[in-house]
Amino acid sequence: MPHPIFEQREFDSRLAQIRAVMASRGLDLLMVTDPCNIYYLCGYDGWSFYTPQVLLVPAVGAPAWVGRRMDVRGVGLTSCLSADDIIGYPEHLIQNEAETPYGFITQTIASRGWKPRRVGIEKQAYYFSVASFEILTATLPAAELVDASYLVNWVRFIKSPQEIAVMRQAARLLEAAMEAAISAIRPGVRECDVVARICAAQIGGVPEAGGVYCSTPALVMSGARADTPHLPWTDQPLAAQTTVNLELMGNRLRYQVPMGRTVVVGQPSATMLRLEAVALEVIDHMLRFIEPGMTCGQVSDETQRILRRHGIAKESRSGYSIGIAFPPTGGELTASLRAGDMTVLRPGATIHFLPAIWADGGSIVISEPLLVTGSGVECLCNVPRKLFHSQT
Amino acid sequence: MPHPIFEQREFDSRLAQIRAVMASRGLDLLMVTDPCNIYYLCGYDGWSFYTPQVLLVPAVGAPAWVGRRMDVRGVGLTSCLSADDIIGYPEHLIQNEAETPYGFITQTIASRGWKPRRVGIEKQAYYFSVASFEILTATLPAAELVDASYLVNWVRFIKSPQEIAVMRQAARLLEAAMEAAISAIRPGVRECDVVARICAAQIGGVPEAGGVYCSTPALVMSGARADTPHLPWTDQPLAAQTTVNLELMGNRLRYQVPMGRTVVVGQPSATMLRLEAVALEVIDHMLRFIEPGMTCGQVSDETQRILRRHGIAKESRSGYSIGIAFPPTGGELTASLRAGDMTVLRPGATIHFLPAIWADGGSIVISEPLLVTGSGVECLCNVPRKLFHSQT
Repeated sequence: MPHPIFEQREFDSRLAQIRAVMASRGLDLLMVTDPCNIYYLCGYDGWSFYTPQVLLVPAVGAPAWVGRRMDVRGVGLTSCLSADDIIGYPEHLIQNEAETPYGFITQTIASRGWKPRRVGIEKQAYYFSVASFEILTATLPAAELVDASYLVNWVRFIKSPQEIAVMRQAARLLEAAMEAAISAIRPGVRECDVVARICAAQIGGVPEAGGVYCSTPALVMSGARADTPHLPWTDQPLAAQTTVNLELMGNRLRYQVPMGRTVVVGQPSATMLRLEAVALEVIDHMLRFIEPGMTCGQVSDETQRILRRHGIAKESRSGYSIGIAFPPTGGELTASLRAGDMTVLRPGATIHFLPAIWADGGSIVISEPLLVTGSGVECLCNVPRKLFHSQT
Repeated sequence: MPHPIFEQREFDSRLAQIRAVMASRGLDLLMVTDPCNIYYLCGYDGWSFYTPQVLLVPAVGAPAWVGRRMDVRGVGLTSCLSADDIIGYPEHLIQNEAETPYGFITQTIASRGWKPRRVGIEKQAYYFSVASFEILTATLPAAELVDASYLVNWVRFIKSPQEIAVMRQAARLLEAAMEAAISAIRPGVRECDVVARICAAQIGGVPEAGGVYCSTPALVMSGARADTPHLPWTDQPLAAQTTVNLELMGNRLRYQVPMGRTVVVGQPSATMLRLEAVALEVIDHMLRFIEPGMTCGQVSDETQRILRRHGIAKESRSGYSIGIAFPPTGGELTASLRAGDMTVLRPGATIHFLPAIWADGGSIVISEPLLVTGSGVECLCNVPRKLFHSQT
């Protein structure tokens, strides 16, 4: 059936790129388990990755999805696959220690007449368990299983015009979420009530586009938690004097755009004002500095150079590639803005530039999602770049 | 430091139960990677499971968390572990093919003076990759690695009074979410706007308790999608005549309570009215039928018997154990209500009883989260049990 979102030629182009890499590595079958990669290759968008499922991509012929029988209908409704290429395993194979879906999956490989000799698997993928790997090893003894983690992820790195159009819609959702957050933050408001406003904006979106679930919950932290990156919000009221670090996302049709901003409740400290100046200097400078042809390592080095000039040592990377996102991460797990990363930025790459500083004395999270263009970078999102001060 | 939620003796009791199982299996170290299990054993609640992290539980002595250095502060703020037992690996080990966190983790085992001979690992866990497993195998050659998947999950099956109190709070969040959904559903409203209302209620919660992110997004499906279990909502308006299947959760301090309800927009068909009668009969009957001492298989058999009497064949299980939930699933991955499951229901078990029917002709999702008591079961949530009709 025609895909509900992307044209068939978009999927054809993606598959052709994957097969070129498969050929270069001598793979005659690729077993795709990362839900982002499955979505990229066939468009299937369902919350079924908590049970074993795989997209089998042979060197020649149509790919086939194999997963839980109750999800077959959902694959049919959301993917570009033909009904014959959507194969469900029966329910008794769920949580069954004696017999597993991966036995069924290897039978499916045989039943389609495929006799793969060199099979790419995703050893780093979140939803491909050690138990599944061991069963695959035992039931597909004639094949050499080689690690093809991130093979599809790397092809995803450069976005097509269709993908960029969707990411621009995601940026509108993110702007709505950021505005909801900043206008909700004031002393005495519970953190959870700020997040309720954020989620309603992320999902309700704008009249022309609604949002879907993000890969990562809104990160909204105040008080002692503001100096950490990954804790959940609480239901405690915001203090009269605190910093709130926001890291929010907009997700449109599984394409996700993230951004960080910091809001001060009460009087900003001298430290916070200094961190604001540094963060803005870094971002202003880097928006002019980055251009296609540079490596991610070069971008990191320049970012670090400016931070060091202000006496700031930042251990964590200052950004990563973004695009399709399912839980648990919004990063594509490929390019990172850090020392030594040799990835060359090319037009169509999309990067979350996140020169955030977490420290004991104070922390600030001001970031920008960027699109690499033919001549430099463009901010995908339009939110004032500054240290915000809360309503009182 | 004192844990912000549970008393230390609660954690002591949990650890003692785990160690009893470890001893029975001859394990001198358990490597816990499932974030639900880490939360259960030490209370750490952070969105850091997308990078390698582990709770090392020795047979004797304090457990230690090892993870990304930037998350050390967050573990300190949310867990019962001492600072000495929270160990961060440096940032360059993230996405580093040459050197990995699992090398650091095995070094940590040695540096603490542990020389484990038989180590339990979670081969089925979502966030323990094949790549990590291979490195562990290579760097811990003196130890026998044995599968201890679900060891902690099975201890979690029976809830303490403290846990049940938190689940009752989660049920209040769920009631708020369900009420928001049902009151928002009407012809012409976009599905995403219904979900925006649901999320705001799930998280904003009630005055005495706010919510956190759920393990699973709200499942809100109409039209052709209502006959599938796992597709995301869309931003299309609800039709004048459709069925909306809702599967929603409330999550309080990571304890999650789920529930399903079906709303008809427009005139209910004869099929839907028949399915409503069947679903209500099944649930009413089973609420009286279930008692402690029964096996999950017996509960399933009785459920199936009534469905069959109405000519309905249900392949999927009719429920599962619930409790702590991180993405990607709200199930505890232990007991299932299906044929042959020999798990005995005991007081303190909490079960999502979900005799949902998905079919071509129509589908209905009416379910109840249940607590097994000393004499039967109690519904954790109070939402009218019926086929709802939308506002017009």
